[in-house]
Amino acid sequence: MIVDVSKKILIVGLGLLGGSYARILKRFGFHISAITKEQSSIDYAIKENIIDEGSTEIDEKIIGEADLIIFALYPHVFVEWIEQNQSMFKSGALITDVTGVKRSIVYQIQDMLRPDVEFVAAHPMAGREVSGVENSTDKMFVGANYIVTPTDKNTPEAIQTCIELGRLLGFSNVTTLSPEEHDEMIGFLSQLTHCIAVTLMTCNDKENMEKFTGDSFRDLTRIARINDIMWSELFIANKDVLIQQMNMFMDKFAELKEMLEKDDVDGMRKMMRRSTERRALFDKK
Amino acid sequence: MIVDVSKKILIVGLGLLGGSYARILKRFGFHISAITKEQSSIDYAIKENIIDEGSTEIDEKIIGEADLIIFALYPHVFVEWIEQNQSMFKSGALITDVTGVKRSIVYQIQDMLRPDVEFVAAHPMAGREVSGVENSTDKMFVGANYIVTPTDKNTPEAIQTCIELGRLLGFSNVTTLSPEEHDEMIGFLSQLTHCIAVTLMTCNDKENMEKFTGDSFRDLTRIARINDIMWSELFIANKDVLIQQMNMFMDKFAELKEMLEKDDVDGMRKMMRRSTERRALFDKK
Repeated sequence: MIVDVSKKILIVGLGLLGGSYARILKRFGFHISAITKEQSSIDYAIKENIIDEGSTEIDEKIIGEADLIIFALYPHVFVEWIEQNQSMFKSGALITDVTGVKRSIVYQIQDMLRPDVEFVAAHPMAGREVSGVENSTDKMFVGANYIVTPTDKNTPEAIQTCIELGRLLGFSNVTTLSPEEHDEMIGFLSQLTHCIAVTLMTCNDKENMEKFTGDSFRDLTRIARINDIMWSELFIANKDVLIQQMNMFMDKFAELKEMLEKDDVDGMRKMMRRSTERRALFDKK
Repeated sequence: MIVDVSKKILIVGLGLLGGSYARILKRFGFHISAITKEQSSIDYAIKENIIDEGSTEIDEKIIGEADLIIFALYPHVFVEWIEQNQSMFKSGALITDVTGVKRSIVYQIQDMLRPDVEFVAAHPMAGREVSGVENSTDKMFVGANYIVTPTDKNTPEAIQTCIELGRLLGFSNVTTLSPEEHDEMIGFLSQLTHCIAVTLMTCNDKENMEKFTGDSFRDLTRIARINDIMWSELFIANKDVLIQQMNMFMDKFAELKEMLEKDDVDGMRKMMRRSTERRALFDKK
């Protein structure tokens, strides 16, 4: 379906991610519409030729014409939106999303969704420390991962379309994981790292430290500039996994502290060598 | 003294930092010599015109001619070197260093040093994940901090020379702190961050995660590739401060975890907003 550019794509939530989707897909020739909160986002996107049409209202015509609908909303807003407006979907429409947690969203939406509409969940692992359609770019996904999280309810065709969408968007890696595998992985790689960054940024109030800050501290706290509404919601939605990961981190950190207290240089060096060795795996290929 | 390019500078330990010092200072016209472990480093540095002469031996003539000696050695090697070879220094010579901890080094060396030779400690806050003179560069210190840590034993002239050295080397910020202030600051900004990175890199052995790694995890673990000999020594040398900082971090991390366990969204959001606000202070100016 996706390579048929006569199809109409609707983006709900025209922010940094939604805007980047629109920018890239518009170039391929798709008809792009958007529904979003702010009129200024619509105005900007039309002026920049990122979308063909848009509305700040639940526009029945725009929704009813869309073949593919991409939701880029906060998780709970996404669920509510589907509950309230799914009657307007075109029969046969495909729905996907950008939500950063999957278990709590995917099953809930698939369970309540009309049988003639399909939802294949996906997570574009990309972001920046700025927001809004004005900061969206068509290079947003270069080097990034796109993860499709299908379930038993999905058809091979819809999964394939979602995979193709990831490729069209320019992601460097497009893969599939179960919602469970996704949430475990994201709990460690993304949520735990944000917990650490926020903690590091708030654990020491000493003044004037910014004068002496080098790259290490800056790197570890880049993501400490954080959207508090979204991330607190993502943390809660993946609570069981995240707490597990936080415990794992705390245990290892306590181990290192104990080695330091005991002057166990050999133990610390062993841990550092293991760290160096494992980090090599994570270099950009 | 330093702006008098007829003076001779000796660098002991010609690695990444020592090599970068040599490269930059050679350009100003100083006579640069080096004493280092590997003949290959000397050969490379002479071929590249980074130094004028060098030796892998404790060369009495090279040492005796130097007006300024820069030590770029592991902390305990530095102390031993001074103990064993200080009789060879020229009277009136000035000594400085690059050591990443100060309290444990500065007083020890100043106490044992010949009265006609002066040691002003300094810490160039710069590094890379590679080592060796072959990776040294003359852009190494752009954007970085150079911290001079004088004591009551230092003369204003020698402190001033050390400050000028930092400026000549191209550091963006040259400041002074007491050894105590330095160690507290570095315990937080540099040592704690390395503890966190090493812990994050070793706390979860699950395979294939590198396939899904985004920029957040990469940023937080860049420094997890670590020189185990040097950093374990630096940790031990600043043990009291570092353990304090580790406890502060753990307490705050446990606080965040408790909020998550209790579904305390308001508490988490407050912490995230504080984090976002504080992080803005640390942006590169």
